[in-house]
Amino acid sequence: MRIVTLTEKEKNNILENMLKRSPNQYGKYQDAVDEILNAVKDRKDKALFEYTEKFDGVTITPETIRVTQEEIDEAYEQVDQELIDVIRKALVNIRSYHEKQVRYSWFDSKPDGTLLGQKITPLERVGVYVPGGKAVYPSSVLMNVMPAKVAGVDRIVMTTPPGKDGKVYPVTLVAANEAGVDEIYKVGGAQAIAALAYGTESIRKVDKIVGPGNIFVALAKRTVYGHVSIDSIAGPSEILVLADETANPRYVAADLLSQAEHDELASAILITTSMELAKKVSEEVDGFVAQLSRKEIIQKSLDSYGYILVADNMQDAIDTANEIASEHLEIMTANPFDTMTRIRNAGAIFLGEYSSEPLGDYFAGPNHILPTNGTAKFFSPLSVDDFVKKSSIISYSEEALKLVHEDIEKFAKAEKLTAHANSIAVRFEEK
Amino acid sequence: MRIVTLTEKEKNNILENMLKRSPNQYGKYQDAVDEILNAVKDRKDKALFEYTEKFDGVTITPETIRVTQEEIDEAYEQVDQELIDVIRKALVNIRSYHEKQVRYSWFDSKPDGTLLGQKITPLERVGVYVPGGKAVYPSSVLMNVMPAKVAGVDRIVMTTPPGKDGKVYPVTLVAANEAGVDEIYKVGGAQAIAALAYGTESIRKVDKIVGPGNIFVALAKRTVYGHVSIDSIAGPSEILVLADETANPRYVAADLLSQAEHDELASAILITTSMELAKKVSEEVDGFVAQLSRKEIIQKSLDSYGYILVADNMQDAIDTANEIASEHLEIMTANPFDTMTRIRNAGAIFLGEYSSEPLGDYFAGPNHILPTNGTAKFFSPLSVDDFVKKSSIISYSEEALKLVHEDIEKFAKAEKLTAHANSIAVRFEEK
Repeated sequence: MRIVTLTEKEKNNILENMLKRSPNQYGKYQDAVDEILNAVKDRKDKALFEYTEKFDGVTITPETIRVTQEEIDEAYEQVDQELIDVIRKALVNIRSYHEKQVRYSWFDSKPDGTLLGQKITPLERVGVYVPGGKAVYPSSVLMNVMPAKVAGVDRIVMTTPPGKDGKVYPVTLVAANEAGVDEIYKVGGAQAIAALAYGTESIRKVDKIVGPGNIFVALAKRTVYGHVSIDSIAGPSEILVLADETANPRYVAADLLSQAEHDELASAILITTSMELAKKVSEEVDGFVAQLSRKEIIQKSLDSYGYILVADNMQDAIDTANEIASEHLEIMTANPFDTMTRIRNAGAIFLGEYSSEPLGDYFAGPNHILPTNGTAKFFSPLSVDDFVKKSSIISYSEEALKLVHEDIEKFAKAEKLTAHANSIAVRFEEK
Repeated sequence: MRIVTLTEKEKNNILENMLKRSPNQYGKYQDAVDEILNAVKDRKDKALFEYTEKFDGVTITPETIRVTQEEIDEAYEQVDQELIDVIRKALVNIRSYHEKQVRYSWFDSKPDGTLLGQKITPLERVGVYVPGGKAVYPSSVLMNVMPAKVAGVDRIVMTTPPGKDGKVYPVTLVAANEAGVDEIYKVGGAQAIAALAYGTESIRKVDKIVGPGNIFVALAKRTVYGHVSIDSIAGPSEILVLADETANPRYVAADLLSQAEHDELASAILITTSMELAKKVSEEVDGFVAQLSRKEIIQKSLDSYGYILVADNMQDAIDTANEIASEHLEIMTANPFDTMTRIRNAGAIFLGEYSSEPLGDYFAGPNHILPTNGTAKFFSPLSVDDFVKKSSIISYSEEALKLVHEDIEKFAKAEKLTAHANSIAVRFEEK
């Protein structure tokens, strides 16, 4: 793995290089996606079934589109019982963490009869998209569904493309069922997003769509945004490890590779104040790569977006980490909590040498759906907040409004909105 | 104002009619906006100044682009002192309400050495767009800036197009200064959004852009979304009044008109269980319209999107209100708090006959930037939450990880991510 001295120039080159991973070649698929969205909007189930035939090679009908209890039972028989047990253990932790995010409606009242408040209401229906294909990630199902469940969403609706046999992957069904999904439909692609956004005879419209997908799914989600809500568009994964000379090079190397294996666009970066650590990590990486099953993806990812940066001092290292704003940030320094207080931008922060990043992917409880590609500067991990909305509450008494009515009328008139002023004035006119 | 009996069919017609107000004719301006965005991205200040010359007819330079303290002082001399006093009073309430929204970082630890948490960090730089033109809304400046200020954003940067004289409207400057804006730049349109999103020599890049604007501004914001964060795209305003026979028809009528005056796409709807109230409100509306300065806009808005709906019973009325999901909802019933508990979707809810909607626009404290056009089903009022981001915190001890390491490895292997499994296993290998 390449070792580079951290300079302003190198930092800017790396930041620019990483942004190249942004999926902004959307344009060329937009027409195809628009066509699918419009077809399903207009012809509903009929178009949905046609596209499923065309893209998934599967014939579905109003009778077979929804996964039945029998199919779920069948899936349980096909999944390793030990994996089911692990899913259940993980769910206990995921639920427990997300329950701490729950917010309550509040109000504040004064004896003059004013009451102001903020009402929290769960979304009514949420759609969770789960990709099909070879890479089946049950952990992603758990992480998308559980915050909605904890938020109190009435109905959680999942769509996922069927395999060639017309069935959904068993482990996906088990994960969905364990997490508490209410309805599962065997459709995928932009046509599934259209069905969730506009509704068809078989699938009722939802309020929000979450979950990862290919470029067609991402583009369809972006297009229906505003009509329904969506989560943020997922980008390629990243890990950044901040380490001083106390870090264990073997652990650092293994953790860097855990993200590099995701895909060729993934990025793994170590920033350290120790040249000795840098060299040892580089050696350990080479040793590991040779043994790992996804070595080709890993090598390509490391060659394109992997760096070991040696910084003059920890402050420079931290400043650079804040500029990169990594999805995952591991801190392996003598005092990781002290270092953490200086971190401004990161999706999830892992402290100390036993907080390996995959602990967060699967088990600890915090959500693994995190802002990528520098967006941790302004976006947050998926959370219970994403499945509720707020309403302001305003209640004034006659006494309270009387005290301020002239001020409000003055403000309204300054904005030349006389009907606004009138609506206040009318309450205090001579009767 | 038209009176219509509430039926399923009428309800669906109205819902469909209201959605026609959605600004989805974006397509034809996209190329023009892309050109501006790319020009400012590439040529920075040079392009920004060229477009300001072209669209605003004003020559700006690196020396004049930023509003100076002298210009702010000059503005204070031009604004009515009474209006300044009202702005200050409103700000006390707005700050006080938003301070109640502030959230704290938290953690939860266990004696086995695990610590999980959620860190809240304010955004570093936020851009607030303020439209120019004749309609100057100082209240909108306060409402966009104050939640960012309360959130603890380091730098709040405002851009607004200069008038023909090269100056910013005095009341905009006063409102910005009172609310605590740190930097003000005399640029507007898509070019201002580009400058905020990509940075130029004169304006440093921000993390998030908020504030209303014309279609070019809205489209530019939508295009840069992901590179920076944005607020939701504002749509036409709405009011919905839920009233029973106890409501004062004169107040209801005045409040309906306060929203109808915003623009021709605004919608004002009364849903009531009382035909008598319906008739009286309709008469009062006619009486008011004739006297109001914006009568032409109001009449057009009422003709297109104004309705008095008479429902069989309060439950039908409430169900319809929830489907419409109005930006503003006034409840004028015998027991407004009881009615409020049944409301699921609304941006801001005003209770009782003295909680007129403009009270919320200017003075009470809750934000007046609210989800429009049915999006209150999933979007929320602008709040302090919009100016912070969260990071998950994960810290495990050796003892804690040891207890679960085999479970995590099993999960990772089930997803065929062997480097993930390896990063956990390596911590417990024989040494």
